Amino acid sequence: MPLVHISLLKGKPREHIRAIADGVHEALVETFKVPADDRFQLIQQFERDDFIYDDGYLGVDRSDDVVFIHITASDWRDTATKQAFYRALVAKLVASPGLRPEDVMIVLGPNRRDDWSFGRGIAQYVENAA
Amino acid sequence: MPLVHISLLKGKPREHIRAIADGVHEALVETFKVPADDRFQLIQQFERDDFIYDDGYLGVDRSDDVVFIHITASDWRDTATKQAFYRALVAKLVASPGLRPEDVMIVLGPNRRDDWSFGRGIAQYVENAA
Amino acid sequence: MPLVHISLLKGKPREHIRAIADGVHEALVETFKVPADDRFQLIQQFERDDFIYDDGYLGVDRSDDVVFIHITASDWRDTATKQAFYRALVAKLVASPGLRPEDVMIVLGPNRRDDWSFGRGIAQYVENAA
Repeated sequence: MPLVHISLLKGKPREHIRAIADGVHEALVETFKVPADDRFQLIQQFERDDFIYDDGYLGVDRSDDVVFIHITASDWRDTATKQAFYRALVAKLVASPGLRPEDVMIVLGPNRRDDWSFGRGIAQYVENAA
Repeated sequence: MPLVHISLLKGKPREHIRAIADGVHEALVETFKVPADDRFQLIQQFERDDFIYDDGYLGVDRSDDVVFIHITASDWRDTATKQAFYRALVAKLVASPGLRPEDVMIVLGPNRRDDWSFGRGIAQYVENAA
Repeated sequence: MPLVHISLLKGKPREHIRAIADGVHEALVETFKVPADDRFQLIQQFERDDFIYDDGYLGVDRSDDVVFIHITASDWRDTATKQAFYRALVAKLVASPGLRPEDVMIVLGPNRRDDWSFGRGIAQYVENAA
């Protein structure tokens, strides 16, 4: 599983936000090989004063459409797979809802297989009898 | 310390939410051997559109009572201890507030002893003079 | 980059919160050698029932001014650097907005260089052509 936190400025249409959530999940399925039904996403919309971003760090020209995509995922993927995910995700969010590539910020937070329990008190990724 | 984030759908009674928070802390004390006064918990309630979960991943039948329990904790516990925590936590939340075992999702986010400062600018877990 | 989450009780003046955010960034610049324009901060204000903290753990006398500063940052800093950060941050928040040293809680969440993409689908910290 990844657990996905999506953070953005308040005021976007519902379909805009849903398209972002869908795109994140599709990119995870395609590049991280996450099962299609392994989808858990929490979305937070922020007031402007509570959402601080630099609009030029590393030469990337960000706008108020910027979205932070923070993903907790187990740490067995290699750098090339992560890079493929970043590229796929940006391509999807450019296609829909039409974000600029500069406005997609992605942060991964690694944990381990035994750090997950998906219900029933079982650590499904390390136990045979799930 | 663990820092606990509890996320659930908006609309549950206050006592329901408090019982979840209490159960998480009790399970940490009993299985992770966290001191009884080492309690730091942040609770977030989400609108339905902002709270996306799959209701069948890994064969677990989830409902709108599902709760995400995301815990940042230092990484020295072994797999067996984590499994004991998952089992204890689910047992507690089944007893009160009466959650279904399928509705308890747990994610651990590991860090290290020197990643904590509990006040006064001191890294209490690695300094002798706390 | 660090991604900074600042959590506190609802009801503080805007300038109080901004001073905290500024202090966190200044301390990161000075001790973690973060570039001045590497600033990304999300602020969350909690209702009292959703914000649970122990007011005495480890002998630290906390008040309702307590603030949780949770920072996702790559894990290459050593313990001494982290300790310098904690000290610098507390000194800044005591100076402005006037927090008590006991009310500054800091948690670091480590990840890796390849866990960041700052826009355009590029993993800037591991790619030459940023």
